[in-house]
Amino acid sequence: MTKLFGCLEGGGTKFVCAVGSGPGQILEEVRFPTTSPAETIGQAISFFKKFNLSAIGLAMFGPLDLNPASPAYGSVAATPKRGWSNTDILGKFRQALNLPVVLDTDVNAAAFGEWYWVPDNRKLESLVYFTIGTGIGAGIIINGHLVHGLTHPEAGHMRLPHDRKKDPFPGICPFHGDCFEGLASGPAMHHHWRQSAEQLPDGHPAWDLEATYIAYALVNEILSISPQRIVLGGGVMERCSLFPLIRRKVKDMMNGYISSPIFTGSLEGYIVPPVLEKRSGILGALAMAKTIKKTN
Amino acid sequence: MTKLFGCLEGGGTKFVCAVGSGPGQILEEVRFPTTSPAETIGQAISFFKKFNLSAIGLAMFGPLDLNPASPAYGSVAATPKRGWSNTDILGKFRQALNLPVVLDTDVNAAAFGEWYWVPDNRKLESLVYFTIGTGIGAGIIINGHLVHGLTHPEAGHMRLPHDRKKDPFPGICPFHGDCFEGLASGPAMHHHWRQSAEQLPDGHPAWDLEATYIAYALVNEILSISPQRIVLGGGVMERCSLFPLIRRKVKDMMNGYISSPIFTGSLEGYIVPPVLEKRSGILGALAMAKTIKKTN
Repeated sequence: MTKLFGCLEGGGTKFVCAVGSGPGQILEEVRFPTTSPAETIGQAISFFKKFNLSAIGLAMFGPLDLNPASPAYGSVAATPKRGWSNTDILGKFRQALNLPVVLDTDVNAAAFGEWYWVPDNRKLESLVYFTIGTGIGAGIIINGHLVHGLTHPEAGHMRLPHDRKKDPFPGICPFHGDCFEGLASGPAMHHHWRQSAEQLPDGHPAWDLEATYIAYALVNEILSISPQRIVLGGGVMERCSLFPLIRRKVKDMMNGYISSPIFTGSLEGYIVPPVLEKRSGILGALAMAKTIKKTN
Repeated sequence: MTKLFGCLEGGGTKFVCAVGSGPGQILEEVRFPTTSPAETIGQAISFFKKFNLSAIGLAMFGPLDLNPASPAYGSVAATPKRGWSNTDILGKFRQALNLPVVLDTDVNAAAFGEWYWVPDNRKLESLVYFTIGTGIGAGIIINGHLVHGLTHPEAGHMRLPHDRKKDPFPGICPFHGDCFEGLASGPAMHHHWRQSAEQLPDGHPAWDLEATYIAYALVNEILSISPQRIVLGGGVMERCSLFPLIRRKVKDMMNGYISSPIFTGSLEGYIVPPVLEKRSGILGALAMAKTIKKTN
């Protein structure tokens, strides 16, 4: 009998819960709005209780405390999402379901999903997944494992060159002003150009600037950890015309420095959209559940 | 009988070769100037031939081709060091000595040395070692292994915020102008201030600017991979007064964003000088030899 796993992607506006054994084998899936922690988590637990599950993977909006030595391990840390700060996620699911449960950030789950379910990625020693949307974040896979370290990567807040003569927009990050997320997230674009990213036509100077900031961040990520592939997901990256712009700028900025044969080409197989499209997160949570001994 | 290992640190000006079994157990050590590849490698091989060794670790100036699938695997790539481009390092030692040999960059070896030989680092899941001297580079340990990925990290060439109003110096990197190395290496400081870093007194504005660029790079590294400790070595970092400056700036730039308790303190145990001082590289090469199955 095929084992059944539960998975959850918890975002700021909605929760998705599913049970199944793989991308083509989802038995049932539900989605409901994110309200109070008690109500929302209660709904998820009721859903999972209907099945005989082997394990559950939770992909949650962050920041999360993922340090097993911390007393707040498994909780949401300080978040602007009202009522959710200090909510113990892992404990609530473990207690109610008496099952192995694994928790990670939504972007880490998406990174793991793209690595685990995509055969061409699975061969790689390292992969980075960026989400560029309402927020910006990155998940890193090295040797088949998500990188956590001190807390978890927060590459959305990297500092990038920002030429205020060319772009006087000060950025909107409440912590850092003009960090990557402050300059290039969906809300930053909206704020800067007084219309949403979706409304900005191809060819608008906003896209060239957006590609510049993303390319700077990718260059720094490539130089920092030398990943074998970079996947770019999230709402802003649904604008397909961004990909060739970003690839060209990354290559130009690198200026021949990296001697890998990959950098003599067009980077088409190196900087790529997610194969699982918008399902990287939920299917990543499923992969986390399936490999729970490896990721825990 | 204790096993004996060989180790080599090959730099642009000198080679160091040693045999032993650990930091306190070095049996013999020699150093000689870097001349032609044939002569220099020949001298190293003659030295190692005198001993009954179990394995050898080579820490070499880069860039190196460390991709096992590449036909040039184990060679020095294009380098300004005359005569050394395309020199097959790994092959020459393996052939002449018929022993297991492991090769990595000098900065990767130093990172591994600081992790392997320092009990307090050995407990960590992740550690980054930066060398800030003639060049700038970083080695990353994650789960006890050096990160290679596509090639090897080249964090010295990260792009950082550079306010040309405050600092009009254009940087000296032949590839990128004002990347991290272009602004903050020893030669960059010399070029900028018309005197060498050693000659610049404490309190000179050069040091505050230097600390700013290093802090930006560290912030990006912390946000990218969330390391549990950062070791700063290399000639420029021998100026001890840089450490408190850098720590304060990293904390200020982070602005409370990382919720780890480490960031509520002074970062004294987080951003640290190398415990092995100038011996991180050669002792790292020894550690590579000792763990050859793990690092190969």
